[in-house]
Amino acid sequence: MSNVERFGISVPKDLIEEFDQIISRKGYTSRSEAIRDLMRDNIVEHSIAEDKEVIGTVTIVYNHHSRDLSDKLIDIQHNFHDQVIATTHVHLDHHNCAEVIIIKGKSSTVRQLADKLIATKGVKHGKLVMSATGKT
Amino acid sequence: MSNVERFGISVPKDLIEEFDQIISRKGYTSRSEAIRDLMRDNIVEHSIAEDKEVIGTVTIVYNHHSRDLSDKLIDIQHNFHDQVIATTHVHLDHHNCAEVIIIKGKSSTVRQLADKLIATKGVKHGKLVMSATGKT
Amino acid sequence: MSNVERFGISVPKDLIEEFDQIISRKGYTSRSEAIRDLMRDNIVEHSIAEDKEVIGTVTIVYNHHSRDLSDKLIDIQHNFHDQVIATTHVHLDHHNCAEVIIIKGKSSTVRQLADKLIATKGVKHGKLVMSATGKT
Amino acid sequence: MSNVERFGISVPKDLIEEFDQIISRKGYTSRSEAIRDLMRDNIVEHSIAEDKEVIGTVTIVYNHHSRDLSDKLIDIQHNFHDQVIATTHVHLDHHNCAEVIIIKGKSSTVRQLADKLIATKGVKHGKLVMSATGKT
Repeated sequence: MSNVERFGISVPKDLIEEFDQIISRKGYTSRSEAIRDLMRDNIVEHSIAEDKEVIGTVTIVYNHHSRDLSDKLIDIQHNFHDQVIATTHVHLDHHNCAEVIIIKGKSSTVRQLADKLIATKGVKHGKLVMSATGKT
Repeated sequence: MSNVERFGISVPKDLIEEFDQIISRKGYTSRSEAIRDLMRDNIVEHSIAEDKEVIGTVTIVYNHHSRDLSDKLIDIQHNFHDQVIATTHVHLDHHNCAEVIIIKGKSSTVRQLADKLIATKGVKHGKLVMSATGKT
Repeated sequence: MSNVERFGISVPKDLIEEFDQIISRKGYTSRSEAIRDLMRDNIVEHSIAEDKEVIGTVTIVYNHHSRDLSDKLIDIQHNFHDQVIATTHVHLDHHNCAEVIIIKGKSSTVRQLADKLIATKGVKHGKLVMSATGKT
Repeated sequence: MSNVERFGISVPKDLIEEFDQIISRKGYTSRSEAIRDLMRDNIVEHSIAEDKEVIGTVTIVYNHHSRDLSDKLIDIQHNFHDQVIATTHVHLDHHNCAEVIIIKGKSSTVRQLADKLIATKGVKHGKLVMSATGKT
């Protein structure tokens, strides 16, 4: 296809052998695929630093018996309704549930929303991770 | 409540002032809450290193026109059906979609499943993040 | 001492028990000490995001037979002479050496210098880590 | 040279253009060099997970007026004398100094030593980072 570029790279034998072993254990069937993934990781890190658009995934864990907590979490998400794409709720055990909020926006906005969700009284634990938007 | 412990800690004034500023900007309304969150982060890192049970959230981004990709992703998830709790699929643009898979299991199993999903040919980008199970 | 503040925090018993176990394994003899360290970690992350002053430590590994490499590395460091505090060079094996450069400056400047050192042709691997300046 | 392998990879045009921009800003003069660095980063992460040999750099910041602290730090390092390669001490301001300890060993041992140094009473902040040994 015309929108793919093919080029050669030089890598010391020791390095490529160790790399091949690792990626085959991870399930990769091609070096190109594995190297493209490393390049995209690199671009995402850069997008985060440069406040470009990213996909944010916030995972929060909380006790669903916490008073008013669901309402508060929904309120926060509504303040960012342009960014929040979807929310999934799962039951972990009798008391605890996890909620995963998928967000699309500038990395600073994504972080701000994640901070607010994680800081909400009653949320036991929360983590944000940012991914590529798929455009490259 | 009897299952909460209250204790005192000593912190240099400069340090607590800077900490208070940061957590208030993040939206925390209490120091206890913010410190508990730091403690849980610490425990999760430890659980990951010790291969204990964690909640894993895998975010993958892919072009949904990729041949057979959805089938492959579903196959992989079925091989880990005891661990996969839920999957959410969202549309990012005309070509790209994001899928978020919520997993509960030992950190090594969670990582293995994430590696396989991310390494699948056609998946453009993927990220794993691990959170607490809410038991503490 | 008057410049230390003492305050109480409330933590669920399960959480504090797990935290106590982890910190005792790490060698902490006091909860206050461990919690202060978590607070400082948090402040450093914030300082990095806000481009405040940090201590940067860059570790680079290279083959000392690489032509002109030492000269290039010294040139780069001299362009940042206000920030570079000290450089330590150690021999890892017959071919390879590691060099650790300690830097004090705004996080963006520290990162820029680290990027340049790591990108230098002949440097096999490099890592940057940022720490607190000790003021809090 | 016979110990270098040259091979071709295919990368979408959008992806390689964005990657080229980022690496040129970081100071890379060749794609091969930048991609080799990503591969080595990947191998180091794997070495850490698999408890293989790595280079560890621990940065600690402390107030040098803290009673007996230097003696304690030296004691800890002597218990790991096979792993500690070198220690560099710098003065940050009137009260604070930074010490950087370069270690070579299995990742679990490196982490154990770092934990002990960072947990020592009087150490304000500490960070560990692990790099490649240069063998690949």
